[in-house]
Amino acid sequence: MRKLLQVDFDFAGPFGEEMSNALVGLAESINNEPGFIWKVWTENQANQVAGGIYLFEDEVSANAYLEMHTARLKEMGVKEVRGQIFDVNTPLSTINKAPVA
Amino acid sequence: MRKLLQVDFDFAGPFGEEMSNALVGLAESINNEPGFIWKVWTENQANQVAGGIYLFEDEVSANAYLEMHTARLKEMGVKEVRGQIFDVNTPLSTINKAPVA
Repeated sequence: MRKLLQVDFDFAGPFGEEMSNALVGLAESINNEPGFIWKVWTENQANQVAGGIYLFEDEVSANAYLEMHTARLKEMGVKEVRGQIFDVNTPLSTINKAPVA
Repeated sequence: MRKLLQVDFDFAGPFGEEMSNALVGLAESINNEPGFIWKVWTENQANQVAGGIYLFEDEVSANAYLEMHTARLKEMGVKEVRGQIFDVNTPLSTINKAPVA
């Protein structure tokens, strides 16, 4: 069953175009992670927060990615990574045109 | 500019099929909210948490929805609603096949 992974963390930047340019290689590598379907990259410069919303094929792949990504972020200097894995309520999400089918 | 709204809160249920059946009318009403594009309905029965990931047309509509939805959830007995509004990093999200274009 597909799982949604919600990640956010306090972040000092880079944001916006600078982030886009710096992290192309990381984004391309994420496409190769087991069970990965899509990721929305999230950022809020005013609040100094960044993160991502991911869809994975199943709980095993979502868990494995969260563990690996948390370790990677900590190596980049992030102190605390907030990560939560959710089921997707598919009937309600389908009513609301969500891209999860 | 499009904004992502991330919402979650402690929740005692209903979950799964029971939630789907109970909240069809609410889901249909959300399609009519100003600036609304899509919502993924999220739930985690083991952790007693639920929420949603939304895409809105702009910050004004995302903020207005979060304020209205927080009040509605509190009327339903939810004590604390965690809501965060993010920019979407479109170039990186596009690399990762995200449904935000």
